[in-house]
This record gives sequence, structure tokens and C-alpha cells, in this order.
Amino acid sequence: MGMIGGGAGAFIGVIHRMAAIMDGEIELVCGAFSSDPDKSKKSGRDLNVDPTRVYNSYQEMIVKEKELPDDVRMDFVSIVTPNHVHFEPAKLAMENGFHVVLDKPMTLDLTEAKELKEIVQKTRKYFCLTHTYTGYPLVKEARVQVAAGRLGNIRKILVTYPQGWLSSFLEGSQDKQASWRTDPSKSGIAGCMGDIGTHAFNLAEYITGLKVTQISADLHIIVEGRKLDDDGAVLLKFDNGATGVLVASQVMAGEENNLNIKIYGEQGGVKWSHREPNSLIFIAPDKPVETWRAGTKYLSEVARHNTRITAGHPEGYIEAFANHYRNFSLCVKAQLEGEQPKEQWLDFPGIEDGVRGMAFIESVIASSKSQDKWTEFTM
Amino acid sequence: MGMIGGGAGAFIGVIHRMAAIMDGEIELVCGAFSSDPDKSKKSGRDLNVDPTRVYNSYQEMIVKEKELPDDVRMDFVSIVTPNHVHFEPAKLAMENGFHVVLDKPMTLDLTEAKELKEIVQKTRKYFCLTHTYTGYPLVKEARVQVAAGRLGNIRKILVTYPQGWLSSFLEGSQDKQASWRTDPSKSGIAGCMGDIGTHAFNLAEYITGLKVTQISADLHIIVEGRKLDDDGAVLLKFDNGATGVLVASQVMAGEENNLNIKIYGEQGGVKWSHREPNSLIFIAPDKPVETWRAGTKYLSEVARHNTRITAGHPEGYIEAFANHYRNFSLCVKAQLEGEQPKEQWLDFPGIEDGVRGMAFIESVIASSKSQDKWTEFTM
Amino acid sequence: MGMIGGGAGAFIGVIHRMAAIMDGEIELVCGAFSSDPDKSKKSGRDLNVDPTRVYNSYQEMIVKEKELPDDVRMDFVSIVTPNHVHFEPAKLAMENGFHVVLDKPMTLDLTEAKELKEIVQKTRKYFCLTHTYTGYPLVKEARVQVAAGRLGNIRKILVTYPQGWLSSFLEGSQDKQASWRTDPSKSGIAGCMGDIGTHAFNLAEYITGLKVTQISADLHIIVEGRKLDDDGAVLLKFDNGATGVLVASQVMAGEENNLNIKIYGEQGGVKWSHREPNSLIFIAPDKPVETWRAGTKYLSEVARHNTRITAGHPEGYIEAFANHYRNFSLCVKAQLEGEQPKEQWLDFPGIEDGVRGMAFIESVIASSKSQDKWTEFTM
Amino acid sequence: MGMIGGGAGAFIGVIHRMAAIMDGEIELVCGAFSSDPDKSKKSGRDLNVDPTRVYNSYQEMIVKEKELPDDVRMDFVSIVTPNHVHFEPAKLAMENGFHVVLDKPMTLDLTEAKELKEIVQKTRKYFCLTHTYTGYPLVKEARVQVAAGRLGNIRKILVTYPQGWLSSFLEGSQDKQASWRTDPSKSGIAGCMGDIGTHAFNLAEYITGLKVTQISADLHIIVEGRKLDDDGAVLLKFDNGATGVLVASQVMAGEENNLNIKIYGEQGGVKWSHREPNSLIFIAPDKPVETWRAGTKYLSEVARHNTRITAGHPEGYIEAFANHYRNFSLCVKAQLEGEQPKEQWLDFPGIEDGVRGMAFIESVIASSKSQDKWTEFTM
Repeated sequence: MGMIGGGAGAFIGVIHRMAAIMDGEIELVCGAFSSDPDKSKKSGRDLNVDPTRVYNSYQEMIVKEKELPDDVRMDFVSIVTPNHVHFEPAKLAMENGFHVVLDKPMTLDLTEAKELKEIVQKTRKYFCLTHTYTGYPLVKEARVQVAAGRLGNIRKILVTYPQGWLSSFLEGSQDKQASWRTDPSKSGIAGCMGDIGTHAFNLAEYITGLKVTQISADLHIIVEGRKLDDDGAVLLKFDNGATGVLVASQVMAGEENNLNIKIYGEQGGVKWSHREPNSLIFIAPDKPVETWRAGTKYLSEVARHNTRITAGHPEGYIEAFANHYRNFSLCVKAQLEGEQPKEQWLDFPGIEDGVRGMAFIESVIASSKSQDKWTEFTM
Repeated sequence: MGMIGGGAGAFIGVIHRMAAIMDGEIELVCGAFSSDPDKSKKSGRDLNVDPTRVYNSYQEMIVKEKELPDDVRMDFVSIVTPNHVHFEPAKLAMENGFHVVLDKPMTLDLTEAKELKEIVQKTRKYFCLTHTYTGYPLVKEARVQVAAGRLGNIRKILVTYPQGWLSSFLEGSQDKQASWRTDPSKSGIAGCMGDIGTHAFNLAEYITGLKVTQISADLHIIVEGRKLDDDGAVLLKFDNGATGVLVASQVMAGEENNLNIKIYGEQGGVKWSHREPNSLIFIAPDKPVETWRAGTKYLSEVARHNTRITAGHPEGYIEAFANHYRNFSLCVKAQLEGEQPKEQWLDFPGIEDGVRGMAFIESVIASSKSQDKWTEFTM
Repeated sequence: MGMIGGGAGAFIGVIHRMAAIMDGEIELVCGAFSSDPDKSKKSGRDLNVDPTRVYNSYQEMIVKEKELPDDVRMDFVSIVTPNHVHFEPAKLAMENGFHVVLDKPMTLDLTEAKELKEIVQKTRKYFCLTHTYTGYPLVKEARVQVAAGRLGNIRKILVTYPQGWLSSFLEGSQDKQASWRTDPSKSGIAGCMGDIGTHAFNLAEYITGLKVTQISADLHIIVEGRKLDDDGAVLLKFDNGATGVLVASQVMAGEENNLNIKIYGEQGGVKWSHREPNSLIFIAPDKPVETWRAGTKYLSEVARHNTRITAGHPEGYIEAFANHYRNFSLCVKAQLEGEQPKEQWLDFPGIEDGVRGMAFIESVIASSKSQDKWTEFTM
Repeated sequence: MGMIGGGAGAFIGVIHRMAAIMDGEIELVCGAFSSDPDKSKKSGRDLNVDPTRVYNSYQEMIVKEKELPDDVRMDFVSIVTPNHVHFEPAKLAMENGFHVVLDKPMTLDLTEAKELKEIVQKTRKYFCLTHTYTGYPLVKEARVQVAAGRLGNIRKILVTYPQGWLSSFLEGSQDKQASWRTDPSKSGIAGCMGDIGTHAFNLAEYITGLKVTQISADLHIIVEGRKLDDDGAVLLKFDNGATGVLVASQVMAGEENNLNIKIYGEQGGVKWSHREPNSLIFIAPDKPVETWRAGTKYLSEVARHNTRITAGHPEGYIEAFANHYRNFSLCVKAQLEGEQPKEQWLDFPGIEDGVRGMAFIESVIASSKSQDKWTEFTM
């Protein structure tokens, strides 16, 4: 694995690395860790990467790595830069034969997203978009239960992503995360909805297998001086007739990161919360509430495949992230060995999630500006 | 106390009686328990009410009780009939000198509600509308904390009332509750939004002290054949610029009755849930989460006034209900004795809550039919 | 109902009254509310009791009430005095034909307890000892599940009753509760173990249907100057070979009243906690955790009989207490009407619980003083 | 890092490897993964270890690695074999200049433990015993709060480790874990108390800084045919006069792995549970309950040092494990570079924990056989 971005001070780069290497299947062999060559070098040293493979730019990295022998060069690249440096390196990497892991949201806008989709289809490279939360085994279990019809037809979906870290004008201080995430030139047209709203949206579509068709958005810039939305609520219509509510906010003062979802069908419901990710609640009329627990034998095969330890030993965010890396790398490895990947390895978020995520952002912004109640979800 | 409605098979009448009498201050002395005289008589016997004061109709009760000596006749009437039998008995009672406790929603429509308000103002009778949830001591504590500025300016309010008991076409069976609550002639123009949406709305306004000014509603009839909404989501704007989301549903299969609310301000948030009513969660940036507990000494005076037992002995729904009855009856008693009520006794939901509740219902229905995103909350 | 004790300043008397009257089946008609006649009179006035039936002493009350006509005199007496005034009034009441509700622990010592048992047997009066916690519907459900063999043979029982209110030398202040409960002349030979250890012990035997046969106790007086144990742990052996641990403490600073129990058998376990009394957790190997909820239709008949409201409307401590009163009064009423009580009405704690509770206290104190690991549980 | 044990089918070896490598500071460079050379080779291949450094025995590994150049050979060895293969490889490794990470319980008996202590002292090697649970940041926070006097003098400690996986005679099947853990020749004289009782004991001493001085144990073999204890309760006395209760069981059918501890002092208490490891509950009289959360800024420096992600992104068991590895390797690295380790790096369980753990096992077994209530905790 080579990494683009993720130098000192980055939040998500560290997570990517831990997630990638923890299973002992992936090694960080090269990187362009910063657009500043000195910083990149320093990060490379800190990360024990061979100095000859710490590059000054992602362009250099892709070109030089391509020239290395098969058994030496990186197999894929992990891109963990701010949003405005997603499309170009991903494009370049795939066009030069490398598989790609990319942080979300996928691109700066929907046009880029669609172009990237074409590149994926043309180059036939594996592409993983790190919507972390669908890596949790009990999120996968929820999807299995919905697919198996345990809830009956889905009627209602409530998904909420509450954060509080942008409750004040943090971008006014030196905070690196706050600065780029609230800067339209780096984040794109959406703030909160792009950063975490897309996670909530992706989670809802992933578990239910449904597609959003119409939305009604009410976005806000709560903190004075901010340039992008930091709070919002969105009413949703799905392709089976179900409806939903998505709430995402970064100004819910005191909240951490408790993404949570509740899905109701004719015969019952499931609930999952990031606060207690190793439990899945199942409810149904006139039955005791069931709590399905990670690491148990009664879970579906896909849930068990994405779990490392026996029940009662909590796994968390890094492991969920690692599940995407592991599944992705199992596919890459299979391809290298000329084998077919198992179906459950293909269960990581990909280019279609990315395109829909960008469409979600654009639809939400459009709806928020509209006086019409409903806006089409356009792809 | 005299009671109108609440005969055999009623759900809420029993609760009203337990709530009224448990503190030993109120006695059930008469009643018109059913529009069917025989049923009324039977209920009277079951409830150990003096047979001479079990009446065939509420009209008869009000007239006859009025003729009794001061120290014998009932001081107030509790009306626990379906919505279409709210206005007339309440009007008659007040116009004949009786204070009134009335179940919610207050009337069949906003016109009746406004007329009732005039009657209350004219007759100067005490009027209590039993929005149970504002009777919980920690709901009151939440209100105190908001009023004291502990959260700063309020920015966001999320309130959800999930029920599942109408997930199937229960009104097709013999279920008495399901039948009248889904019948427009008895419930009015709203189903779910009238029955429980009004509770959620009232709770939000009660705790924050804010008023809703605009709404955007998306209501549904999920169960085929049903005549009134059984599920809905409403976006809210409040008079201080805060926004909110209200979700109420009676078709969330497997849900019980877990009304819950989250309120966020500049400096922190509070959360309360009917599932664990004796706790109030307070969060703020960079501070441990606080759980305020019922029955403790550190609570506000108003919270302690509405608690009966020391910390750790859970109080529930009947006690919350009883708080409204106790405060109401303390006011009635003070008036009988020519004294001023204490301010904290006046803290029970009244005519203004009722009018706003009916306005909420009408606004929600109007918005749901409109293609405009926002509809004015009209009184 | 007549009441002995429970005047101004009493904690438990108020609870007894609310619990007794809330169902509308029991009326407080007379009382000797204090050993101080003036205080008794004042309490009577506050409680709206006919002044001619507010007595100067319990002796007077029992004698005078006995002389009243059948349809006027009290049917039973509720004794809510400190422990040293339990035996005599209970004895006198039963010997004069009155049924008795008595607060726990039953008497000052085991000798009194056994004598009281003889009186109950001789007079054939109904006798209820208010071990509140066995009045909760989900405690009853736990008992049903154990009896039905859902857990298999019981292997292990963990019961803990943590309180913190005596963490400091509260009896040094004017606190009435602290004073008598730490005074051997009023409480008997045990402090914490008598006050709350007996509740834990009773709960364990009630749910499992097992009997303790041997104990190993480690009691402490943690707070300097205190005269009775305020903290302790007891190892238990049961008559089927199961073992257990009972912990009770009144010096766990910050704790409220969270009595909790976990029972494990060959095939699964149940857990109940006073903190969330409307849930019963059932666990078993390789199955999702089940949470059984109060007010649901799938509960046993006995649990449903002891519930007042539908699922999701929490009931609490007063209702649990009220269940004992209701079952007791249903039995009394049946006897008055010459009928047989239903079996589920007989499900309230009685004389045998009281005798075993006193035996528990004496065994625990004996064991605590002994250097032998095990002490026989002697009756 | 070299590894001894941890070949195919091992439970804990996988965890050790993920924990060791996830931070990118430690690399698995060699191993003797099984006493069966073929299995060792196969494991080496699966783990991508250089085949020339996959050894047939730990003896061979230690000898051969020692001969490698400084910058090539392993710096430390991680021993993850069953208990009976702990002492010899640890001894050999340290005597040949390698630091050691060793799984718990440390040795087969106290004599070995003491001898190992002498070797550690003589060779001055770093020695880490993987009592996982003290690696959790909020366990460390609890220790900080106790040390800072936030609870006042400690009075009471309750620690419980409930498991259910040995509820039936699993060792009768092919289960590898069950087989060696219930076999005295491989586990030593204790079963449950050695396997998980030592964790509970270590956790109690770690957080409080107190030492157990006397115990009273009641151990059981619940499952017929089993050779070692599978369930037990132990009363504890600590060196400051505090008392405690330790319960550990592997036959609590349906339990997972919810180690939990409650510590009470004069002024408050702390509670931590493995079920929700990212929260620490702090309680005190007349104050709201506080929940301290992982990843927040208000935590102590030591807690923050042992956390990888910001608040609300749950970390779990592997990360707790990784904390021990990271602190240990930071010390090893400092020594290699001739520097002093920071104090917080030295915060991993070591030889003294190991000796006390073995003393705990022997004392518990001795007490369990004794008719005396109290047995000295002997070292």
C-alpha cells in the first residue's frame, strides 16, 4: 500500500494506517504524505517507510512506483487528503494500474464523481470508498436481516448523525480539521452534509438496500461566519414508498459521534448506534426485545467474517475501518493470484456509493435552496 | 371530583382515577361514566361511587351536582371521553361553576379550542389539559435548566414519539381504542399527529419556552384502509430562530411509547426519554456527561415538588399524571379557601397548551397537503 | 384500613398510603399515626381522617375499632412504625380480628417472629410483609421463568443492594430515618443487613424458590461511631446445591437504591435491576439477549395481573408496593365475602418470609462473629 | 518481535499480533509458532514471516536470533502458549538478552513466578504481562481519579468477571481452548480463578493501588467431570482496611465477557464495565452522575496517551491490548537508544503483577480448601 496524504496533524490518515496494517496482510511501502516535500519526508521517517519511496508528490509516486518490479511496487494506493485532492490522484492511480482506497466524500462534485465511475469501469480496478460505518459487523447483520425479510416491507427509516465539535467558530482558531472542512474550496458545496450527512445517507441505503428518490432539505449555518452548512434535517422518500428522516449536525454541543439508525418494517424494526456498535436491537410486536451481539455464533456468516474476536470483547472504529481494508485487499490479492473473490469480500463501499453520495450532496443543497417541498434525487 | 367517561374498557379513565386519588387529596364522588346509563351505573358500582351520584349523562351530572350543597358537590370534573365529546361537557361544566380537567387533544378543531379559551377566561375556572409528559419531574428540571441559560441560546430540538400498536389494521378488529382513535368523526382531522404528535409538540414548547412559527409536514397513512395519518415527520422553525424535527408514528412495529427529546443550545444539550424518565442527561463540550436523577437534593425546587420518593425509587407514568392532578387540585383548593396559589402549583398544562395543540394539528394537516416547503403556524 | 405510625416526617408511611389507595379499593379510615397524641391528631387532620377515629395509641385504636359495626370498622391495619413497634401491634391487631400489613423487617428478633407466626396460624388472619421489590411485575415474571425451567437447574445467584445515604455519620444530625435505623434498640441487632439485606435475601428466595441453608458473612461498621453494621457481603449456599453472593451496603457513597439480581442456571440466566424495573433480561448461550418488558401481552398471567398500564408507560416503586396491597386486599375482601381467593392474589410476602428474614439477620450476625467459614442458616 | 506459540487455532495469538502491529511500530520478524515444526512453518507462511526465521522450537529461535546482527534480530519475544509453557521460554529469552511479553497467568505456580522475578531483576529486561483490561484508557482514568483522592479513602471494591462459555462440558468436545484451560497439567492448580479471576484481582489492585492481605474463597466445580474450578466467589481484605468481593465464573450461561468493577470511597465511587469500556461512571452523594468518555480533552494525560481516536469513535479490546504493546515497545526502544522511558510508558503490567497473580491463585485455592473464614494472602 502507498498513501497519499496523511502526514503529521492529519486525523484520518492515522486511522487508515492502523486499519490497513492491523490484520498483517497489508504493509505501508511508500507514500506522498504531504504536498510539502519536507513534511512528506519527515512523515515517511516517522512511519518507517523506505526513504527512497517517500515521494514529493502523488504524481511522482504513481509514476515511480509503476516503474518498480511487480513484486516490489505497491498494489494499491490509499488517498486520505481533503476532498479537493481526491479526484485527480484517484484518476491517475487507476489509469496507471493501481487499485484505490479513497476517503469520503468521494469528489468535489457530482461531475467528477461520474467521471471517476467511468474510470473505474474502464480500468477495472478495485475501488473502495471508506464509509467506515458499514464496516461494523452488526450493521452488516442489520442488512442481512432486512434482506431476509425479517422486518417485512420497510416503511420508515430514521438516521441521525449528531456531532458537536463545530459548535463554536473553531475554524477561526488554528484547528486544521475545522479549517478545511468548512472551506468550500476544499470541501465542496456542502459542509456537515458532505462530511457526515453522506455517512448517514450511505448507511440508510446500505442496510435497507433501498434508494432515495426524493428529498426535502432544511440546512443551516448556525455558527456565525461559517461558510458551509453545519446543521440540517432532510426528509426522504425511498423507491419502495418508504419514507425517512435524516438529521446531521456538527453543532449539537456536547455530542460526540453517535451515528444511529432505526429502520421499521411491517413486522418489526432494527436499531443500531455507534455508541454501542457491538449490539443490534431487533424489535417486533408482542415479542421480547432482542439484542444481537457481535462475536456470537448465531450471527450471519457475513457478520462473523467481519469480526475478529469472540463475543464480549468489544471491537470498535478501527476494526470497522479495517474490515473495509481487509475485504478490499482480499479482492486485490485474489485478482493478483488470478482468482475470483468471494462474494463477502466484495462487500465494501465502492464507486456507486460514491456517486450516490455526491448526488445526495447536490440534491440536498438544491432542495435546501428551493421553496418546493420535494426535490428529485438526481444522479 | 366527578368523572365524565372512563367506564369499563376505557384506557385512560383508569389512569386518571389512580393519578387523581393516589395523593389522598382528591376523591371520586360522582360520575357519568358512559353514554349508556346501564354501563355508567355498573361502572359507578365497580368504583364504589354513591349510586345516587352516578348519572345517566354529563348534562345531568352537571345540573344535579350544581344543586348540591357546597361541601358536598364535586369541586371539579375530569373529562376522559374521546375527542368529540370534549368541548361540550367542558363548556357546560365551566359555565356551571366547575373547574375542569380534560384529556388531550383538547377539542375536535381549532375553532372549538378558541371558544373554549374564551369560556375559561370568562368563567375564570381552572383548566388542566393532561399532557402527561410535562408532569415528569425531570422534564420540569430540563425546563428549569433551559430557562436558567445553562444551554445558552437554543439551536435545535429533536423530538420523537414512536409507537407501534397501530402497525396493522387493528381498527378492523374489536379494539375499542384503535377504533375511535382512527375515526375522523371522533378524533378530528388528525390521527397520529393528534394523538401523540401533540404530546411531542407540547413537550418541545414546554421545555424550551419557545413557540413554533413555521412547519413543514410529511404525513402518511401507512396501513391500508386507515382513515387518518398514522405516521409523520415535521420540520419546525421556532420564534428564536431555532429549528427542529418532530417525528411521530404509530406504525413503528415493535415500539412501545418511548417519547424522547433532545435539545441543543450554544453551550450544551439536554436529553430526556420516557423509557428512563427518572434521568435527565446533560451534555456540554469538553465535560463529562451528567445524569441528573429524580429524587435527589440537587434538583430544582419545582422538580422536587413533583417527586414523591427519594432517589433510586423509580416513579412512573401514573405519578407524572398525578403531578398534574395535584398541582391542579392545590390551585382549586387555594381558590376555595380564598388563597393565592403558589407559582409552582400553576405549572400544569392549560388552555393555552390546548389551543396551540389544536393549531399544531391544523397546521400540520395543512402543510402535509401543501407543495410549499413551509407553512405558517397559525393560531 | 387503619394505620399505625406514618405521621409527619415518616418516610415509608406516605408510600404505604399512596400504594394502598391508588387502586380505589382501599380507604384510610382511621389511624394512630404517632405515639404522641397531638402529632397523631395533626396527621389525622392532614390526611382527612374522621377526627373521631384518630387515636392516641394503637391499643386504643384496635379496641375502639373492634367495637364499631362491621360495615364501619377498619378491615385491616397497616403498621409502618420502626422495627421495635412491630410485634406488639401486629399481635394485638390479629388477636382482635384484624388482618395486618406490616413493614419489614418483621420483628426485633427471631423469637418474636416465630411467636407472630403462631398468632397468624392461630387467628387465620391475612398477613402481608411489605418486601416491596417482589411486587414488581418483572420480578414475578423472573420467578415464573425459573419455575418453568427456562434456566434449567439454578447454579448461581448474585444479589446486590447498594445504597450510599449512610456514607457519613448522618445519625449525628437530626435525620430521623438515620437515627432509628442505626439504633439497636429500635432496629434490632442488624443495621444494613436488617434494613436492606433482608430485601436482597427475600428477593433471591422469592425468584428462585430456593432456600438458603448456609452462609458466610463479612459485616462491617464503616462509619466511625455507628452502632450497627452499615456494609456487608455474604456467601450463600442454597438447598439445591446452588451458591450465591449477597452484598448490601449503605455506605457506597453516591449510590441510590439499585437493588439488582442475577440468577444463572444450566441453560441461561435472568437479570433484574431496580434502576430499570420494567425490563427483565434473559440470556442464554448462543442466542440474542432478550429483554422482556412490562405491560406486554407475552408476559405471564401473574405479571400482567400486577401491571396497570400498557407497555412503555413506566410503572415504579409505588405501583410495586400497591401490588402487594391490592393482592392482600383482594384476599381480605374475598374472605369478607366468604369466597376463595384466586391463587395469584395470594402472591404477596407473608409470615414465612418474615420468619426467614429474621433468621437471616440472626444467622448473618452469628456468622460475622464466627471464625468458621460456614454457619448454618437456622430457623 | 518474535512469537512463541500462536499458531493456527490459537485464540490469543491473533490478538497479540494485531495489537502489536497496529501502531506501525512493531513488526513480526520471526516465530516458533507451534511445538509441531510443520505447523510452525505453515503458520509462518500464513503470517508472511521470512521462512528462514520460522523456527522448530522456541529454544532454537532464541539461540539463532541471538546470533543475528543487532539491527536484524528480534528485540523482544511474545509468548502466547498455554500456561505450562510460560516459564521456560521466558527465562531462556531474558537470559539470552531478549525482552519479554508474556500472556497471563504468568507461570504454573508461585515458585516459578518468584524465580522469574529474580531473572527479570538480574537480566534487567523489560517484562510485560498482558493483563489486557488495565490497557483501557478509562481504567487508567479510574486509577488516576483514585490516586488523586477524588473518592477519598477506599472502602469497598466489587469486581465481577462473568463468562458462560464453559457452562457445559466443552472439554469433552474437540474445543482446543476448553481442553487446555481445564487441564491441570497445562493450566496449573486453578481453572476459572487462574484464567479470569486473576484479571479481576489485577484490575482491583491496579485501579486502587491497594494490596489484598486476606481472602476467603468459595470455589466450585459446577460442571460434572471438570477437573478445575469453573466458578467462585472470594471475599477480600485490603491493606488499608477496605474490603471487597470478587466473583469469577465461566458457567454463567449466556454471559460473554463483561468484567466489571465498582470502587467506593468516603466521598464517591467509580464504575467501569468491559461491556462499555469507553465510559467511566463517577458517582458522589448529592451530585449528578458523571460519565467520563474516552477520547475527550478533559481526561488525564495518561488516559489520553492510551487513546487513538477522538471521542465517540469506540476503541475496544485490541486497542487496549495494543496499549500494553505500545508502552512496552516505547520502553524497549528507549533502552535501545540509550534513553530514559517516560513514566507513562512504564504503565504496563509487569513481573510484580505476575507474582501477585500467582500468589492470588495459590491463596484462593488454599482458602477454598480451608474451613477457616480467612486465609492470609501469602507471597
